[in-house]
Amino acid sequence: MSANSQKKLWQGRFNASSSEILEEFNASIGFDYRMYIQDIFASKVHAEMLAKQKIISKEDFKAISEALDKIQTQIEKDPEAWAKARISDEDIHLAVERELTELIGDAGKKLHTARSRNDQVVTDLRLWMKQELSQVKGLLKDLRSSFVTRAKQDIDTILPGYTHLQQAQPISLGHFWLAHEARFARDSERLEDALKRIDINPLGSGALAGSTFNIDREFTTKKLGFSRASENSLDAVSDRDFVAEYEFVLSLAMVHLSQFAEEMIIWNSQEFGFIEISDSFATGSSMMPQKKNPDIPELLRGKAGRVIGVLNALLITLKSLPLAYNKDLQEDKELLFMANDTVKKCLKISSDFLMEITVNSDRMLESLSKSFSAATDIAEYLVKKGLPFREAYNAVGSIVKHCIEEKKQFSNLSMAEWKSLNSNFEEDIQEKISALACVDARDIQGATSRKQVKEAIKFSEKRLKNV
Amino acid sequence: MSANSQKKLWQGRFNASSSEILEEFNASIGFDYRMYIQDIFASKVHAEMLAKQKIISKEDFKAISEALDKIQTQIEKDPEAWAKARISDEDIHLAVERELTELIGDAGKKLHTARSRNDQVVTDLRLWMKQELSQVKGLLKDLRSSFVTRAKQDIDTILPGYTHLQQAQPISLGHFWLAHEARFARDSERLEDALKRIDINPLGSGALAGSTFNIDREFTTKKLGFSRASENSLDAVSDRDFVAEYEFVLSLAMVHLSQFAEEMIIWNSQEFGFIEISDSFATGSSMMPQKKNPDIPELLRGKAGRVIGVLNALLITLKSLPLAYNKDLQEDKELLFMANDTVKKCLKISSDFLMEITVNSDRMLESLSKSFSAATDIAEYLVKKGLPFREAYNAVGSIVKHCIEEKKQFSNLSMAEWKSLNSNFEEDIQEKISALACVDARDIQGATSRKQVKEAIKFSEKRLKNV
Amino acid sequence: MSANSQKKLWQGRFNASSSEILEEFNASIGFDYRMYIQDIFASKVHAEMLAKQKIISKEDFKAISEALDKIQTQIEKDPEAWAKARISDEDIHLAVERELTELIGDAGKKLHTARSRNDQVVTDLRLWMKQELSQVKGLLKDLRSSFVTRAKQDIDTILPGYTHLQQAQPISLGHFWLAHEARFARDSERLEDALKRIDINPLGSGALAGSTFNIDREFTTKKLGFSRASENSLDAVSDRDFVAEYEFVLSLAMVHLSQFAEEMIIWNSQEFGFIEISDSFATGSSMMPQKKNPDIPELLRGKAGRVIGVLNALLITLKSLPLAYNKDLQEDKELLFMANDTVKKCLKISSDFLMEITVNSDRMLESLSKSFSAATDIAEYLVKKGLPFREAYNAVGSIVKHCIEEKKQFSNLSMAEWKSLNSNFEEDIQEKISALACVDARDIQGATSRKQVKEAIKFSEKRLKNV
Amino acid sequence: MSANSQKKLWQGRFNASSSEILEEFNASIGFDYRMYIQDIFASKVHAEMLAKQKIISKEDFKAISEALDKIQTQIEKDPEAWAKARISDEDIHLAVERELTELIGDAGKKLHTARSRNDQVVTDLRLWMKQELSQVKGLLKDLRSSFVTRAKQDIDTILPGYTHLQQAQPISLGHFWLAHEARFARDSERLEDALKRIDINPLGSGALAGSTFNIDREFTTKKLGFSRASENSLDAVSDRDFVAEYEFVLSLAMVHLSQFAEEMIIWNSQEFGFIEISDSFATGSSMMPQKKNPDIPELLRGKAGRVIGVLNALLITLKSLPLAYNKDLQEDKELLFMANDTVKKCLKISSDFLMEITVNSDRMLESLSKSFSAATDIAEYLVKKGLPFREAYNAVGSIVKHCIEEKKQFSNLSMAEWKSLNSNFEEDIQEKISALACVDARDIQGATSRKQVKEAIKFSEKRLKNV
Repeated sequence: MSANSQKKLWQGRFNASSSEILEEFNASIGFDYRMYIQDIFASKVHAEMLAKQKIISKEDFKAISEALDKIQTQIEKDPEAWAKARISDEDIHLAVERELTELIGDAGKKLHTARSRNDQVVTDLRLWMKQELSQVKGLLKDLRSSFVTRAKQDIDTILPGYTHLQQAQPISLGHFWLAHEARFARDSERLEDALKRIDINPLGSGALAGSTFNIDREFTTKKLGFSRASENSLDAVSDRDFVAEYEFVLSLAMVHLSQFAEEMIIWNSQEFGFIEISDSFATGSSMMPQKKNPDIPELLRGKAGRVIGVLNALLITLKSLPLAYNKDLQEDKELLFMANDTVKKCLKISSDFLMEITVNSDRMLESLSKSFSAATDIAEYLVKKGLPFREAYNAVGSIVKHCIEEKKQFSNLSMAEWKSLNSNFEEDIQEKISALACVDARDIQGATSRKQVKEAIKFSEKRLKNV
Repeated sequence: MSANSQKKLWQGRFNASSSEILEEFNASIGFDYRMYIQDIFASKVHAEMLAKQKIISKEDFKAISEALDKIQTQIEKDPEAWAKARISDEDIHLAVERELTELIGDAGKKLHTARSRNDQVVTDLRLWMKQELSQVKGLLKDLRSSFVTRAKQDIDTILPGYTHLQQAQPISLGHFWLAHEARFARDSERLEDALKRIDINPLGSGALAGSTFNIDREFTTKKLGFSRASENSLDAVSDRDFVAEYEFVLSLAMVHLSQFAEEMIIWNSQEFGFIEISDSFATGSSMMPQKKNPDIPELLRGKAGRVIGVLNALLITLKSLPLAYNKDLQEDKELLFMANDTVKKCLKISSDFLMEITVNSDRMLESLSKSFSAATDIAEYLVKKGLPFREAYNAVGSIVKHCIEEKKQFSNLSMAEWKSLNSNFEEDIQEKISALACVDARDIQGATSRKQVKEAIKFSEKRLKNV
Repeated sequence: MSANSQKKLWQGRFNASSSEILEEFNASIGFDYRMYIQDIFASKVHAEMLAKQKIISKEDFKAISEALDKIQTQIEKDPEAWAKARISDEDIHLAVERELTELIGDAGKKLHTARSRNDQVVTDLRLWMKQELSQVKGLLKDLRSSFVTRAKQDIDTILPGYTHLQQAQPISLGHFWLAHEARFARDSERLEDALKRIDINPLGSGALAGSTFNIDREFTTKKLGFSRASENSLDAVSDRDFVAEYEFVLSLAMVHLSQFAEEMIIWNSQEFGFIEISDSFATGSSMMPQKKNPDIPELLRGKAGRVIGVLNALLITLKSLPLAYNKDLQEDKELLFMANDTVKKCLKISSDFLMEITVNSDRMLESLSKSFSAATDIAEYLVKKGLPFREAYNAVGSIVKHCIEEKKQFSNLSMAEWKSLNSNFEEDIQEKISALACVDARDIQGATSRKQVKEAIKFSEKRLKNV
Repeated sequence: MSANSQKKLWQGRFNASSSEILEEFNASIGFDYRMYIQDIFASKVHAEMLAKQKIISKEDFKAISEALDKIQTQIEKDPEAWAKARISDEDIHLAVERELTELIGDAGKKLHTARSRNDQVVTDLRLWMKQELSQVKGLLKDLRSSFVTRAKQDIDTILPGYTHLQQAQPISLGHFWLAHEARFARDSERLEDALKRIDINPLGSGALAGSTFNIDREFTTKKLGFSRASENSLDAVSDRDFVAEYEFVLSLAMVHLSQFAEEMIIWNSQEFGFIEISDSFATGSSMMPQKKNPDIPELLRGKAGRVIGVLNALLITLKSLPLAYNKDLQEDKELLFMANDTVKKCLKISSDFLMEITVNSDRMLESLSKSFSAATDIAEYLVKKGLPFREAYNAVGSIVKHCIEEKKQFSNLSMAEWKSLNSNFEEDIQEKISALACVDARDIQGATSRKQVKEAIKFSEKRLKNV
C-alpha cells in the first residue's frame, strides 16, 4: 500500500481529504527531509527514555530502535527521492512514524507517546543547526587562516590605505588582510554566543503545555547532547529567536564577504591593477574575447542581499504571532537551509579565491608615489618640532596646494623648498616621507608598522588555535 | 562527447579549468533553465533577423531554426534533468548554443553574431515575466471574482465592523468581502503599470554598447511581441528595476493575503466562531485529537515574509552597482522564481479557501448584540435633533457609561430611560439601533447599506469584465 | 485655559487620565502637524459640503471657515513650536478642532459631523502626498535635465565602458549620462502611476462604514481636487498601499542615486582619475591634510539604506493587520516624512553635484589605450570577412593572449603580425581599432555611436518637455 | 565671531565654500550632539594620555581639561539648541574643538594630536552605546520582573492554551506570563553578548593606520572604562558590526513586544473578553462614543516594523563598503538613536501596561468549557490503560466527533456513554477532564502544573537577581 493512498495520522475527525495542490502547499517534507538524521536520532532517544520511565516496554524500545535504523539506511540512499515519494505524509516526522508503524505495528504506534510534532520539530531543528553552526565555524576558521597566511606572505608589500576610496596613508598589505581576519573572527565569536541559545532541549514540551506522563527531560537532554532543557513549554515550541540570531550572524558574515569582494573587484580593474584574479575564479564574456571577469567576487557580493533577505523574512514572519505554535513557523526552515547553504559555499570559495590572488606590488607602490599620502607624517613631524597639531595640519595643507600647483610630489621637493615652506623642516624630513618609513613609523598596538603586524599575526594565530 | 568534458565557449584565453565547486557556484543553469522556451524563441527571432539583414544566410537561419526546435523538444521531456546534466555549460544560453553547434556545426557558431549574453538573458527574462505576470493577473481575477461571489451571497449577513479589533459599527458581510476585492483590484492595476516597464525589448544592446552589425531592432521587437525597444544599451543590460517593481507588487499582494488570512484565523477561533474553515484547508495535530488547525491561512500569512524578503534582497543586490552588467545581477532570477511560484500558489489556494468558508451568521449577530456598536447612530440621531456633533458624542458617551454600570445593552433601555438620559430621544430611537437599521442607514457611496453594497457589486463585476 | 489641562475630546467615558509618557507615546502631533495646511483645507471643504447639504447652517460654515483661516495663520508662524505646545491634543486633527471650538463655540463642535479621524487623516495624507509627489517629480526632472545637458557637453568624450568593472568596449560619455537619465525617467513614470492610486478621496468613509448623514462625496472629491472617490469605506480608512508604493518608487530612485554615486566615487579615486569633484561637494579630513573626500556621493550612496529600510518597515507594519483602521497605521507618516525629505535633498544635491563634475578626458583615453577593448570589433571584423562568430571570437582570444605575452597593445601590432595571426586581416583593420572608430561603429538604435547619442538626446529632451 | 562665519578646520586646501544646503546635508551635528558627554570625556582622557606621554605639556592638558568642562556646562543647558547654532561645524567633534580653541588658543589646537575623527567618532559611539545598552537592560529587567509578578498573581487562573489560535490544552496564566519572561530574558542575554563587542577601545587607530606618536592605548582603554583595545586600526575605524548587532537585539525585543501586544489586543476584543485594558493605555474614537481602543499595544506592535527597518537599513549601508572609513558610515547614528529611543519607550510602557491589565478569569474558564481541550488528557488516559498512543489518539478523535454530532461537551458525557465509546474508561475519567486537573497533570519540568510554575517563578526570580 503506497503512502499516497493512506489516511493521514491526524485525520481521525476529518471527513474530506485534501486535494493535491493543498497537500503540496501544506507539506514541508520537500525540505525538512534534510533533518532526517536528527529526527531519527531524537526518536531513538525519546523511545529509550520512554522505556527507562516504563512508559513503553524495553521490547518496544528495541523494536523501535532497530526499525528506525533500517529506515535511516533506506533514506540515506537518496534522501531527496525518498522525500519526494512521501509528499502526502506532510513532513519528515509523520513519514518516519508511518514507515515505523508499517514495519513493526503496535510498537510503532507508541513512539509518539508524550511527544508532539511541536516539540519534535524544534528538537530536530536545533540538532541540525548545532551541526551546521559547527561547520560554518570551521569554514570561518579556514578563511581566517588564509587571511593570516596571506598577511605573513604580504607583510612587506606596501600599498595605499584608503578612506573614502581616496589614498590616505601607506599601509602594509599584511595589515590589510588582518583587518579582514578581525571581522570574521567576530563572526565566529557571534556564532559561539548564538550557540548558547541553540543548544537547548525543547523535547518534553509537548504540543505547548508538557505531558501528563512522567518523562525524564534530563535524560533526553544529556543523551541528545544538549547543554540544558528549555524552561517553559509554551515558549519552547514557539521560539524561533535562535534561528533569527543565527541568520543575523550569517548576514553579517555575508556583509563582510561583500566588503572584501568589493575591494578585490576594484583592485582587479585595469585602472587599479593591484591584483590579478586566478583564471579559476573568473569567467569570460560570450561576446567580448578579451574579457576576464571577476565573477566569483561579484557573486559573493551579490549574495549578501539574499541572506539579509532571509533574515528579514523570518523577522517579518515572527512579528505579531501569538503563543504558542502557529503554522507560520513552518516558513523558518526552507529559507534557513538556503541561507546556510549559500554562506557555506561562499566561505569555502572565498578562502580558495584569496589564496590564489596574485598581488602586483609594483602597481601598488606606483600608485602611492602619485599621491600625497605622507601628508599626515609631515604634519606629525612638525608637531614634534613644536607646532600645535592644528597649525601643523594647516601648514601641510598649504604644502599640498603648492605641490599641486607646481605639479610636484613631496619626493620632488628640494630641501630649499621644504625650508621655504616651513622653517621647521630639516634634512631628516626627506627620509620620513617614503612609503615604507610612513608604514614603520606607526608603531603602536593595532597600527600598521611591520613590527606591529608581526605581533598581530601572532595574536591571530593564537586565537585561531583556540577555535 | 559529453558536455562536461568540453571547453567552455568563452575559455579562449584561459589556461586553468574551473573546479567543480566553482562551476556549480558560478552556474545559473540550475534555475535559469526555466526560461528555455523563451531562450529558444528569442534565438529563432534573432536568427531570422540576422538572415533578413543578410548577416547570415537564409540556409543558416533555416538550419538554426530547425535545430532549435529539436533542442526544445528534447528539453521538454524533463527540463530539470536536462539542466542538471549540463551544469558545466554555466547557463541555459550557452547550453543551447553548444547543443546547436553540435547538431549543425558552423551555422550554429553564427547564432551569437551581434548578440551578447547580457542582452540575451534580459530578453529571455522579460519574455518569461510577461507570461507570468499575465498568469498572476488571471489568478488575481479569480480571487476577486470569488470575493464578489461571496459578497453577493453574504449581502444580508450582518456582523460587527471592527477598528482596533474592537466592535465599531455593524456592517454587511458583503461590504467586508468587497473591501478585500478592492485591495486585490489595486494589485492588478499595479501589475498593468509594471507591465509597461517589463514589455521592452533589450535585444540588440549587445554586451553594453550595441553592435557593429546592421541589425534591425524594430523587427525583433515586433516578432518577440514587445511594445518597444529599449532606449540605451548600457541601461538595457543592467536594468533590473522591472524585476524589483514586479516583486514589490507581489509583496503587496502577499500583505493583502496576510491581512485576509489574519482575519480568517481570528474568526475561526472558538471565541469568535464567526466561520468554519473547510476540512480541506485545515489539518490536525499529531498529539491533540480534537484539533482542527487553520494551517492554510497561517501559511498564507507566514509566506508574506518570504516575498518581502525577496524584494529586499534584490534592492540590496542592486544598490551601488556600477554600469553596466555585473555578475551580481545573476541573483535576480532564483529568488524571483521562488516569489512568483509562492504568490501563484497562494492566490490559487486563497480563492478556493474563500469559497469553502462556512459563515456562522448567528454568532456574528450574537456578538453584535453584546456591544454598543449603535453608539454612532445614536449620536447622529441627536445631531439630527439639533445637538452639535461633539455634544451629541459626549451625551452618548454618558449613555454607554450608564449601560455598563447598569449592565444593560441599548436594546434593554426603556423609553423612560432614553428620555431621562437625553430629552431629545423619541420613540423612533428604538428602531434606529438594530444592527440592520444601522447598516442600511449608511446609504452613501462607498458605505455599507445593502443598497450601496449592491451598487458596489455591480461596479466590481464591470471592472472584472475589463481585466 | 491651556490645551494641556483640558479633557480630551474622546474622553467622555474614561475615568483615568493619561500620564505624560503615555501621552507623548500615543501622540502623533509631533510629526503630523506637517499636514496642517491639508487638514485645514479639507475641513473647510467638509464644512462647505455640510452646509450645502443643510447638515449645518451657512452661518456655521462661515464661522468655521473664517476661524480655520485664523488658526492657519497662527500655525504658520512656527508650525513646529505650535505643535510642541499641543502634545496633549494627540494629533493635528484634534488640536485644530479644539482651537476651533475655543474660538467659535457650538459651530466648532459641528465640524466633525459625518466625519471620523479615520477618514480625515487619510484625506490629509493623500493631499500632502500629491503635493510632495509633484515636487519629487520636479526634482527628478531637474536631475534628468542635468544628465541630458552633460550628455550634450560630453558627447565627444570617449571612455571605457565597463562590465564587471572590467573595460569592455569604448563608449561616448554622453551615452553614459543618458543611461542614468533613462533610469530616473522610469522613476518619474512610476510616480505618475503611483499618483493614480494616491489621487483618491476617502472623505465620507467615516470611521469605517460611512455615515448616516446625506453627505455629498462627489462635491468634496471635486473641491479637494481628487480624481475620484474611494469605493469601499472599510478599505478607504485602512488602505496604506499607496504609501508603500510611493516609498517603493523613492527606494528605487535611491538605488539609482547609489549606483551613480558609486561610479563617481570610483572615478574620483587617484587610480581612475576620470573626474574631479568640485570642492563644494567634498570635505577634508580632520587628521590628513591632503585629503579631499567625496562625502556627498558617499552620503547619497549610504542613504539608500535608510529609504529601503522605511519601505521595509511599512510593509512589516501592514502585514497581518485586520480591517479596518488599527493604530499601527499611525506609524506610516513619520518614516514617510523622513524618506521623502531624504529623497528630495538627495535629488537636489545630485543635480548640482553632477553639473560641477570636471571630466578628465585624457585620463579616460589613456586608460582605454592600455586595454583590449577593441576586441569585439576585431571579432566582428572577422565575421564580416566570413568567419562564423564563435570562431572569430576564439581567434581574437588568441590574439589577446599573444599581445599579453608580447606585452603589446592592438595598436602596436604590425600589419605582418595581424596577417600572421589571421589571414583574413587586411590594411583596414588598423583604422577599425581606435576608440573613436569603435564608438561610432555601433550605429544602431540605442547604441553608443555619436550619431545615435544625438538622436537619444533629442528623444530625452522631448520626453522631458512632456513631464 | 560666530561659528558660521569661520573657515572649517579642514578647509586648508579648499577654494570654494560649501553652500548652505550642502552644509546641512553633510553635517551630522543635528543628531551626533547627543554624544557630547562622551565626546568631551574621551577628549579629556586623550589629552591626559598625551600629557602622560609628554606629547603635550601638563599645563596644556590642564587648560584643555578645564575648558572642556566649561564647554560641557554650556552645552548641558540646551544641547539641541547648542547644536542647531553650530550646523556649520559639521559635527560635535569639530564644534567642541573649535570652541576649545576659541577659549584657550594654542593648547586647544593640540588636542587633536595623534587622533582622527575616524577613531574619535567611534570611540564616542561605543561609550554612548555602553550607557544605553545598560539602560535597555534595566528596562528589560523591569519588564521581566513585571511578568514574574503577574505570574505569581495569576498562577491559579486557568485559561485555554492555544496553538494556531485554536484552543489546545488548558494552562495556568502564570505559565503564560513566564513564557514572555523567557523571551525577554534571552534578549537580555543577547545584550550581554553584544556588549563584549561594543566594549572595545578604538582610540589610537587614527584615521586608519594608527599614529607616529608614542601614544599609550592601554592607558586610554583603562581610563575610558573599556575592557580592551581594538586589534587592527583599519578595522577599528570602519567596524559598525556592533551597531548592527545591537540593532538586531533591539529588533528581536520588538518582535517579542509585538507578539505580546497581538495577544493582548485579541484578548481585549469583545469576543474573547479575557482582559480589560486600563483606561490609561487606551484611547477613544473621534466619532464613535462607545469605543475604548487598545492604542498602546497597537503601537507596540506597529513599531516593530520601524526597528527592523533600521537594522535592515544599516546592513544595506554596510554592504560592499571598502576599507577603511567611508562617509556612508555617518548613516549609522541617526537611525540607531531613533531605534534606541523607540525601544526604551516601548519597554517602559509595556511594563506599566502589563501591571494594569485586569484579567477576567471567568471568561477564560467559560471559553475553555466550550471546547475539547481535555482531549489529549483523555488520549493519555487511554495510553495509561494500555492502548498504543496512535490508537488512543484515534479513539479520542471519534469521541470528539460524537460530541460534536450530539452537541455535547466531554463534561456532559454520562459514564455509560464513556464506556460505550471505549471500554477502557472507568469512573476516574470524569475527574481527569476538568481544566484544573489537566493543568496540574502536566507536572514535569517546564510544564504548566501549578507546582512547576512555582518552581519556574523561583528560577526566574533568581535569574533576575543576577542581572
